[in-house]
Amino acid sequence: MMNRGKFITFEGGEGTGKSTQVRLLAEALDRAGMKVKAVRSPGGTTVGEKLRTILKTREEAEDLTPETELLLFGACHSQMVERLLKPELAQGVTVISDRFFDSTTVYQGYARGLDLDLLEHINAFSCRGLKPDLTILLDIDPELGMKRSSIRAAETEPIEKDRFDSETLAFHTAVRNGFLTIAAREPERFRIISAAGTIEEVANAVKDCINHEFGLELL
Amino acid sequence: MMNRGKFITFEGGEGTGKSTQVRLLAEALDRAGMKVKAVRSPGGTTVGEKLRTILKTREEAEDLTPETELLLFGACHSQMVERLLKPELAQGVTVISDRFFDSTTVYQGYARGLDLDLLEHINAFSCRGLKPDLTILLDIDPELGMKRSSIRAAETEPIEKDRFDSETLAFHTAVRNGFLTIAAREPERFRIISAAGTIEEVANAVKDCINHEFGLELL
Repeated sequence: MMNRGKFITFEGGEGTGKSTQVRLLAEALDRAGMKVKAVRSPGGTTVGEKLRTILKTREEAEDLTPETELLLFGACHSQMVERLLKPELAQGVTVISDRFFDSTTVYQGYARGLDLDLLEHINAFSCRGLKPDLTILLDIDPELGMKRSSIRAAETEPIEKDRFDSETLAFHTAVRNGFLTIAAREPERFRIISAAGTIEEVANAVKDCINHEFGLELL
Repeated sequence: MMNRGKFITFEGGEGTGKSTQVRLLAEALDRAGMKVKAVRSPGGTTVGEKLRTILKTREEAEDLTPETELLLFGACHSQMVERLLKPELAQGVTVISDRFFDSTTVYQGYARGLDLDLLEHINAFSCRGLKPDLTILLDIDPELGMKRSSIRAAETEPIEKDRFDSETLAFHTAVRNGFLTIAAREPERFRIISAAGTIEEVANAVKDCINHEFGLELL
C-alpha cells in the first residue's frame, strides 16, 4: 500500500511571499527525496489556468460581478480536486498549493461581503469535502504587504499588476482579519507564520513547522 | 417612464431549431419596430463567450467534472444578468435568449443527476431572482432531434460538433422529460410548441404565441 500524499496550502494577503515559499518548500521536499508537486489556485489544471486568465484580466467594458468571481473560483477548485489533487495524492505525491478555498472564503466573503453560509456551501460542493492536511497562513501587516506587493509589481510587466492588487488598504485589512478569523476556527489545520522577516527567515519557519507536523527533518 | 423590455427564452433539446427560431423571432420583432436583442447562453457577455468556449471544447486530457460545468454555467448566467439583461431590459429592449437557466436545471440535474435543490440554489444565486417573462419550450421526439442535429453537424465544421451533441439517446430522452417536468411546474411561464414541423410552421406557431401573450400583431 502506498501512503497517501499530504496536501499543504499557503494562504495570506498580498505581499506575503506565498509563491516564493511554495517554491522553496517544494525544493526542500524534493531534496529530501519526496514526490512533490507545486500548484496554484486559481489554476492548476488546464481548465483552471484558462479560468485564472479570465479572473485576473481586467475587462475594460465588463467587470466581473462578485457572484461570477465566486462561481469561477468554485469551478477552478472542482476541476483541481478531481483532475489533479485526488489522483496525485493517491499516487503518494505531496501537493503544495499557492492558495485554495480559504482564499475564496476570505476574499469573496469577509472582504467583498458575500454570504458566508453560501460560500461554505459552494466550497463544500466544489471540493467535495477535500480539505488541506495543513494550511500555513503567512501573516503580515497590510501596509507592509501592500508596499512589498507594489515593489514587486513595479519590477514586473504591467500585466502582472492584476485586479486583486489594486484594492484599498481597508480591503487588505478586511482580508487579513478574515484569514485570522478562519484560522482561529480551525486551529488543528492552520499554522500562522509571520511573513515580516526575510525570505530565508520565513522559509526556515516554514521548514520547522513542516518538520514538526509531519515528523520530517528538512534542512 | 420607459416600459421595461420583455425577457423571452427558448429552451429544448438538440435539433429543435432553437437558434433559428430565436433569429426569426428577433427579425419579426425588429420589423414591428421594437428594440430587440438576441443572445445565447452560455455566452452573451464577453466573459460568457470565453466560458462558452471552455464549456464547448472537449479537452483531450481533462474532461470537465459535472460540478465544474454547473459552476461555469452559473458564472455565465451571473455575468449575463448584471452586465447584459438588467441594463438592456431597463432600456426597453426585448431580449431573446437561446437557452438560459432552465437548460442548466435539465442538463445538469435531470440528465446528469446533480442534486435538484442545489441546482435551484445556484440558479437563484447566479440570476438573483431574474426569470424570463416567457419561456418557449420547443419539444421534439429525441430520435428525430438527434437525426436533425447530426445532419446539421455533418454540414458544418467538425468543431461545431460539441460535447453536448455526442450524448446517447437515453440522455436526450432524460433531457426531454426534464424539460416537460419543469414546464409543467410553471405553466404561467412556459409555452410548449412542437418542433416537429418545418421551420416556417414552427416560426408561425411562435409568432401566434408571442402575439397572444404580449398583445402584438406580428406577421
